[in-house]
Amino acid sequence: MTTQVIILNGGSSAGKSGIVRCLQTVLPDPWLAFGIDSLVDALPPKLRGPDGGIEFATDGGVHVGPAFRALEAAWMEGVAATVRAGARVVVDDVFLGGTASQERWRKALGGLAVLWVGVRCEPAVAAGREIARGDRTEGMAAAQADLVHAGVRYDLEVDTTRAESLECARTIAAHIG
Amino acid sequence: MTTQVIILNGGSSAGKSGIVRCLQTVLPDPWLAFGIDSLVDALPPKLRGPDGGIEFATDGGVHVGPAFRALEAAWMEGVAATVRAGARVVVDDVFLGGTASQERWRKALGGLAVLWVGVRCEPAVAAGREIARGDRTEGMAAAQADLVHAGVRYDLEVDTTRAESLECARTIAAHIG
Amino acid sequence: MTTQVIILNGGSSAGKSGIVRCLQTVLPDPWLAFGIDSLVDALPPKLRGPDGGIEFATDGGVHVGPAFRALEAAWMEGVAATVRAGARVVVDDVFLGGTASQERWRKALGGLAVLWVGVRCEPAVAAGREIARGDRTEGMAAAQADLVHAGVRYDLEVDTTRAESLECARTIAAHIG
Amino acid sequence: MTTQVIILNGGSSAGKSGIVRCLQTVLPDPWLAFGIDSLVDALPPKLRGPDGGIEFATDGGVHVGPAFRALEAAWMEGVAATVRAGARVVVDDVFLGGTASQERWRKALGGLAVLWVGVRCEPAVAAGREIARGDRTEGMAAAQADLVHAGVRYDLEVDTTRAESLECARTIAAHIG
Repeated sequence: MTTQVIILNGGSSAGKSGIVRCLQTVLPDPWLAFGIDSLVDALPPKLRGPDGGIEFATDGGVHVGPAFRALEAAWMEGVAATVRAGARVVVDDVFLGGTASQERWRKALGGLAVLWVGVRCEPAVAAGREIARGDRTEGMAAAQADLVHAGVRYDLEVDTTRAESLECARTIAAHIG
Repeated sequence: MTTQVIILNGGSSAGKSGIVRCLQTVLPDPWLAFGIDSLVDALPPKLRGPDGGIEFATDGGVHVGPAFRALEAAWMEGVAATVRAGARVVVDDVFLGGTASQERWRKALGGLAVLWVGVRCEPAVAAGREIARGDRTEGMAAAQADLVHAGVRYDLEVDTTRAESLECARTIAAHIG
Repeated sequence: MTTQVIILNGGSSAGKSGIVRCLQTVLPDPWLAFGIDSLVDALPPKLRGPDGGIEFATDGGVHVGPAFRALEAAWMEGVAATVRAGARVVVDDVFLGGTASQERWRKALGGLAVLWVGVRCEPAVAAGREIARGDRTEGMAAAQADLVHAGVRYDLEVDTTRAESLECARTIAAHIG
Repeated sequence: MTTQVIILNGGSSAGKSGIVRCLQTVLPDPWLAFGIDSLVDALPPKLRGPDGGIEFATDGGVHVGPAFRALEAAWMEGVAATVRAGARVVVDDVFLGGTASQERWRKALGGLAVLWVGVRCEPAVAAGREIARGDRTEGMAAAQADLVHAGVRYDLEVDTTRAESLECARTIAAHIG
């Protein structure tokens, strides 16, 4: 069955965005790229804080409330509908809830051909890349590196610790049905 | 009937994004913000060019090909599904096709309560703001200022030539059912 | 005497950056643009916080420590040297210290032909534009609107409350010797 | 003698910016970061094009004219003055002119204690990272990878092909007098 959606899951600074851009370049068909960052950008500013939205704590923790969860669920339905309408979509997400996060996507994407990809990176290396990027709350990379993979099942895993984004993208592209 | 989607249409540098952010602040419920810029960001780089995608010409013209139109149609279905799943959404778009653009949205949003808002700005003023922003192809503001409104029907029009974004947002908010 | 430096002073969201970009377009010679934001971008991340650097408080206040002041003084010398080496430079700054801020610049720019420009905006309007921009700590615009002008002496003042950036830039350009 | 300026030279996508941010974090004193990108940002838009300024060709070539060179020379004097006034500064540059570029810096920084650092990256790897970044003209990384090092003499070279930014930064920091 032809893959219709690629879901990349990995912690902050694991290198998901770079892989997404490489995938869009190496895959012959046009794929749209959406991600948890694009959802956060779409939120009203008042939900970027502790009142039921999403909060990035200074210790690297990320706290998500019910208002965020409700909008996220609607957004997932939107991504699924975009795919059902004929677009191929690659999504990068951070499964803060581990298996529960995967379950939410599985429900939204019911009936679609999904390729589940785990994007790993050793915590110390991800933490160094977080410093090099300079635009993220310090501590997120280390806090999320293992957490987001707990119990999640993949079709394929890539590890950016020693492999370049383009190489990871080619590995993933080889698994596209 | 309670408004579920607000569609803002206006030319480049007419001030749509500022109104969107003000709307998200003044409206009591959380509204997600999507827009044509977020779709363009989601495109593969190879579709940002003349080969069937979207091309920003140096004279301020914007040319759109069949590959872009297909992905745009799927994205519109996604926005509609996000709304049907319970999120309220404000969209800012540039109706390069005038009535044809509105028709595409009308079809995707069938059955939903939409507020259609025209965002006007005098061409000379929009052209000046384009210079002040410095991040847009010069000429887009003037080229699009009137073009995008040709034949389009609105529930409400605002004009940023002399009104601030926040004032326009409050006018729109007063029309939300 | 030919103007060599233009210093624009105004509160956050008063519209300084837009005027700078318009000035670079309307002035026939090439002018370099530097500003307090470019200095903040050049700081090490550890100085963006309470330890002697610059801190953006959640109430809109900005607190500046001795480590920041020392680097700022060196940067001002650098701007002056750039001008002495033949480049014409426009600077946008936020005189948190009022007359003391102006005195620091006056000392660094000794012997150069400076045009001092005040960029005013009514506090309520600046606060609305801060919401429309969505990228600033809420409250900075209102907190700084009058504060930064206290005791400062200008060659020229512009007011963006009702005048466009391009119009303000043309007014300033007409005063360039 | 205590190092006062660090000059990093390397091609586009070699990883200079990441190393700079890591250096600012690992070095105990505060260092300001300037770079060729900050100069380009300071240029009037009309100099970003073929008329004597800087032009980024679609084949990855970068062409620089006399108006750019004049402003660049003044900017280099400004960086030197910032250091002479007491700030420690790390600069990242792209020596399109090879030894001539180094000579320009050497002249501006006369009398200061400079650490010259070459940032290498294998052309194929840099080209892959350029795709992963998605914000650069394709072809610049490959075109510049070797070119910028021709004839340049360093105190120290790092290679990001297999070493992380943070590791390179630590190597450089160990050479700071």
